[in-house]
Amino acid sequence: MKTLIIVSHPTIETSLNQQFFKEASIHLSATWHHLEACYPDGKIDLQTELALLKEHDRIIFQFPFYWYSAPAHLKMWQDQVLESATKVLLGKELGIVLTTGVSEKEYQAGGKEEYTISEFLRPYQRIAHKFQMTFLPPFVLAQFMYLTEEQRFERLISYQQYLSLVEKPSLINRIDWFIERFAQNEIIKEKEPAKQQMIGDMLEEAKENIEDLTFILQEMKGRSL
Amino acid sequence: MKTLIIVSHPTIETSLNQQFFKEASIHLSATWHHLEACYPDGKIDLQTELALLKEHDRIIFQFPFYWYSAPAHLKMWQDQVLESATKVLLGKELGIVLTTGVSEKEYQAGGKEEYTISEFLRPYQRIAHKFQMTFLPPFVLAQFMYLTEEQRFERLISYQQYLSLVEKPSLINRIDWFIERFAQNEIIKEKEPAKQQMIGDMLEEAKENIEDLTFILQEMKGRSL
Repeated sequence: MKTLIIVSHPTIETSLNQQFFKEASIHLSATWHHLEACYPDGKIDLQTELALLKEHDRIIFQFPFYWYSAPAHLKMWQDQVLESATKVLLGKELGIVLTTGVSEKEYQAGGKEEYTISEFLRPYQRIAHKFQMTFLPPFVLAQFMYLTEEQRFERLISYQQYLSLVEKPSLINRIDWFIERFAQNEIIKEKEPAKQQMIGDMLEEAKENIEDLTFILQEMKGRSL
Repeated sequence: MKTLIIVSHPTIETSLNQQFFKEASIHLSATWHHLEACYPDGKIDLQTELALLKEHDRIIFQFPFYWYSAPAHLKMWQDQVLESATKVLLGKELGIVLTTGVSEKEYQAGGKEEYTISEFLRPYQRIAHKFQMTFLPPFVLAQFMYLTEEQRFERLISYQQYLSLVEKPSLINRIDWFIERFAQNEIIKEKEPAKQQMIGDMLEEAKENIEDLTFILQEMKGRSL
């Protein structure tokens, strides 16, 4: 699966969130496409954009929440591209990667931001449905500054999975994802080839065990009916 | 009350909706402010905008629904102006005038557009609350092309009231609004001064009758308690 990350951020060079995302996306099958850098004057090249959309299966809109929606540059992109994109978007996936300086729990009735993120994202959800795309639950990175190293690592893995793991993954899909990522890790391959082999084998074995257990459970369910 | 109509429409010269609105707003205490005309390159003059906001009491965002929100130019305005507008917006009113080519009844669960217009407008509603502004129920002009002359006239009066009538008006407020508009009508004043006087007197009389009736009703309510 190929993922297109359409990033909109007017001051990306000072954004820790976006640096974090960019580094996390490097070894994945994902294209980083920063709109403000490509089109500083806002004049979008329609043919380039349609070709990009065509090449990818999962389309991500990635942006900081500016007044409860995307920065103006992404709106320019929408206004100039979407009308011509009916065919190239049909049946694909649309995901939203959102950063916010406000705690996620403020986005609810009674919270400081009053409405849920899902409510604010209705326009994007509706766009997905209009193009018969699957709308992925949004990936929210809130208050990155306040996260511990461990929390950041957890968010990094989640973000990578958001970009590259199949939609609604099973446990087996998740393990496969880790096996693949682990086998491709160049640093480990170079420095610790023996360990890489060993851990890879262990993950494969764990996967087989889970497959066996799943099979047995299904057998038992079948018998008890 | 002074009203600022912030219009965003990239091809306004071909928009029947916007021509209709513009003509309807002419004799009211309202300022027509078309963003694409003032700032074709999208570079908003912050000081001009803050001065405009300061001068007016009711702020209107007026636009066609592009992908379930405003065209990119209004988003540029939001991104460049709102952060500095905390003081000048405090306590004012925010209204949305929205045009759509789709019938209003499609904006509901099970309709073609799935969600209500209120749901799509959450970002604007939240902005109003953030600035401690009163959010006015949106004014929606749907499928203008298909309206009869009579329907258009009805929408014209409603639009004028949306711009200039006090929020949550009583019947007396509405009659006062008509009396004032009627008295100011230059064409009638010139061509039919006698009729203008007569109809004005009739409206005043009707207003007094309603005030009397309201008083009597309140008396009766008071006695029956």
